[in-house]
Amino acid sequence: MDMRIGADFLDELKAIVGERLSTASAVREHHGHDESFHPPHPPDVVVFPNTTEEVSAIVTACFRHRVPVIPFGTGTGIEGQVTAVEGGVCIDLSRMDRILAVHSADMDCVVEAGVTRKRLNEHLRDTGLFFPVDPGADASLGGMAATRASGTNAVRYGTMRDNVLALTAVMADGTVIHTGRRARKSSTGYDVTHLLIGSEGTLGVITELTLRLHPVPEAIAAAVVSFTALGDAVDTVVATIQSAVPIARIELLDEVQMDAVNRYSGTDYPPRPTLFLEFNGTTASVQEQTKIVKAISADHGGGDFHWALRPEERNRLWQARHDAYYAAKALKPGFDGWTTDICVPISRLTACIMETKREIEESGLTAPLVGHVGVGNFHLIILTDPDKTDDMGKARRLHERLVRRALDMEGTCSGEHGIGLGKLAFMAAEHGPALDVMRAVKRALDPKRIMNPGKIIAD
Amino acid sequence: MDMRIGADFLDELKAIVGERLSTASAVREHHGHDESFHPPHPPDVVVFPNTTEEVSAIVTACFRHRVPVIPFGTGTGIEGQVTAVEGGVCIDLSRMDRILAVHSADMDCVVEAGVTRKRLNEHLRDTGLFFPVDPGADASLGGMAATRASGTNAVRYGTMRDNVLALTAVMADGTVIHTGRRARKSSTGYDVTHLLIGSEGTLGVITELTLRLHPVPEAIAAAVVSFTALGDAVDTVVATIQSAVPIARIELLDEVQMDAVNRYSGTDYPPRPTLFLEFNGTTASVQEQTKIVKAISADHGGGDFHWALRPEERNRLWQARHDAYYAAKALKPGFDGWTTDICVPISRLTACIMETKREIEESGLTAPLVGHVGVGNFHLIILTDPDKTDDMGKARRLHERLVRRALDMEGTCSGEHGIGLGKLAFMAAEHGPALDVMRAVKRALDPKRIMNPGKIIAD
Repeated sequence: MDMRIGADFLDELKAIVGERLSTASAVREHHGHDESFHPPHPPDVVVFPNTTEEVSAIVTACFRHRVPVIPFGTGTGIEGQVTAVEGGVCIDLSRMDRILAVHSADMDCVVEAGVTRKRLNEHLRDTGLFFPVDPGADASLGGMAATRASGTNAVRYGTMRDNVLALTAVMADGTVIHTGRRARKSSTGYDVTHLLIGSEGTLGVITELTLRLHPVPEAIAAAVVSFTALGDAVDTVVATIQSAVPIARIELLDEVQMDAVNRYSGTDYPPRPTLFLEFNGTTASVQEQTKIVKAISADHGGGDFHWALRPEERNRLWQARHDAYYAAKALKPGFDGWTTDICVPISRLTACIMETKREIEESGLTAPLVGHVGVGNFHLIILTDPDKTDDMGKARRLHERLVRRALDMEGTCSGEHGIGLGKLAFMAAEHGPALDVMRAVKRALDPKRIMNPGKIIAD
Repeated sequence: MDMRIGADFLDELKAIVGERLSTASAVREHHGHDESFHPPHPPDVVVFPNTTEEVSAIVTACFRHRVPVIPFGTGTGIEGQVTAVEGGVCIDLSRMDRILAVHSADMDCVVEAGVTRKRLNEHLRDTGLFFPVDPGADASLGGMAATRASGTNAVRYGTMRDNVLALTAVMADGTVIHTGRRARKSSTGYDVTHLLIGSEGTLGVITELTLRLHPVPEAIAAAVVSFTALGDAVDTVVATIQSAVPIARIELLDEVQMDAVNRYSGTDYPPRPTLFLEFNGTTASVQEQTKIVKAISADHGGGDFHWALRPEERNRLWQARHDAYYAAKALKPGFDGWTTDICVPISRLTACIMETKREIEESGLTAPLVGHVGVGNFHLIILTDPDKTDDMGKARRLHERLVRRALDMEGTCSGEHGIGLGKLAFMAAEHGPALDVMRAVKRALDPKRIMNPGKIIAD
């Protein structure tokens, strides 16, 4: 164990959280990795604070002792954001799971960082409101803000960037700050809220969030439509977005991913390139939207629309979509799954996907493709055989080329998974001199370099 | 003239911009103030760069000589953001007025900072797209981003915060950075784009912007409806927002402001509390929205809807609304106009407005009230007689109480006008310890304190 984590320091932490602290190997291991293939690094100690004040006291102690601080939500990230590469104190926020206020009239709510997205939506069930941002996992809202997460609804409702009004956070020296207000807009100074969203714990620990809520639409209709050719499916997406239909979800799964979904979720969709769609609005508006998208789809050779209209049918459909990552991994038991995502302008999406598919084929690897294509974002899950020595090299080349292609197309090296460890190498290529601005901000706000060191800003 | 602005330094600037430089008194005076009552402070010299590279060279020279840099768009701000309180070099960006690209398929465009919002929309006329953010003045898009401007469309389309995808900016040492990408979302590091939006030139000079565009709706219908009681008009707004009708504009003008509008714009609206409304969508959707809002309005004693359906009628209606500030000032020729704005959660809007009206009445001053009430944002234009010594004191008390009320209601001291000089005194009350984070960011990115000194962060 690191010298910094001596008995005295542990006693200091115990004075703050009492028995809610663990140095047990199993607990540390559990907190040393997320769902990715990135190598695990356990923290030295895990604490389970109940309040922002406790988080502040913990971080203050870490600041004094120069001990790394790693915030931990549900561990469902996929770029290694929670791995404790330099050891230190993992702050597990799962006990901070209170829903502090729901302001129905203002369509917002205040939650602690450990509340998960599904629990919030269960809590909201009788209010006629919902929180739309939905990464695959049932992640914590604090973690979702810290990684600027999004999901299937982003095309209509935006990402965490668009749905957080205000934050409470503990900064590197233990100071508690409140950023933003419940007012819908403000032009009063630097946007510290957005500086923290996506900062992956490297600037502060998010402990509370004020979130925008949205009215549950009067009508919701989901559908599945399959295509013979992948390019036709993507062209349907592009045309739909350009038609300005306010579609709520438009998700693409290639034939490999559809086969994986059928096996994992027990569905019997045709194993072909497929779009999962959802329309939200008034009954009349949903009918209108549906008509337009059906016509676009037919123009591009799309098959019949298979509708899921009742809530339980829709839930099954979207659960199958949300489980795509687990389904892909299950396709090759014992294989490693390298998950990655990029995002490009919609006009480049077809070219980007077709070129990527060609390279997957050339590589000989299995790599299902699935994505939030309405915003130009898609994922690969590159499966590698740990017994084949060159599989990892092939995966690395595939990944590198995918990212370079996205950047060449004025896209970004991650639409929603974040930087963590997995995209560190591409920060300079994507941001150029703006990376120096990020470095200066990091130095200013974390002068002792204790906040999730080794993430976002490489040393 | 300040010692820092010696002949040598001027020669350096001339080597960069040639004749596009002025120290003429009239030019300096023009650039030393905006449209507010804040006392003017002329810069020492005004330069008119043509390119980002020229801006970079100018700022580099200022950095070396520790000379203040004040970016200037159209001078239509109203919180004194462009006043050169410590002299220095005013960078007038009006010649950087090229529209560099319109990507119709991606619904975005790239413009230089000096392009105004109206010019952009004229340019877009044949594309079926438009840029929605519309402060009253025909401001430059760079200035609008720098002040996080918004306007009547924010309730549906958001503010500059929501409609800027990427920026080019010149930082304090002259470094040119590119922030953000044309992809619709990204989770790659700190959000430098949003750090610059609303920074009022205190962190960098914005020289180019990539903006989101929106499809011109199939149907647009505007209407005016008046009420006997102000409270009923506000309650109609609150109920409309809570009904989740995707209304495009919902603007409130009190009876004082309506009288001002009639006099200034030659209209003959009833001089009563009035809502200006606009519905966007498909024809069917606009009909549906209209029906709901008409019913809500009738429930609250609203009068008949007076429709403006043809483009020229609608333009006349919205021009009258956009001219509200000038109309209010014209109400009392020779008076000073103290313009301010605040924003509160929608559930507090009625209480906030009614209490504010009561205090205006008590003060004996004339202060028209107008606002983007769909997002809880409203403005006062407090008119003071320069010949009455106690008018300014009364205005100050009214203003102070308005801001405190907004903050007590979990609102913000400015919804869209920004900080400049006018709201500096309230930054600590609104942000608390988060202001120290802003200070640390300012010190890190502007170590010589040359970027629009005296704004946002008080010394």
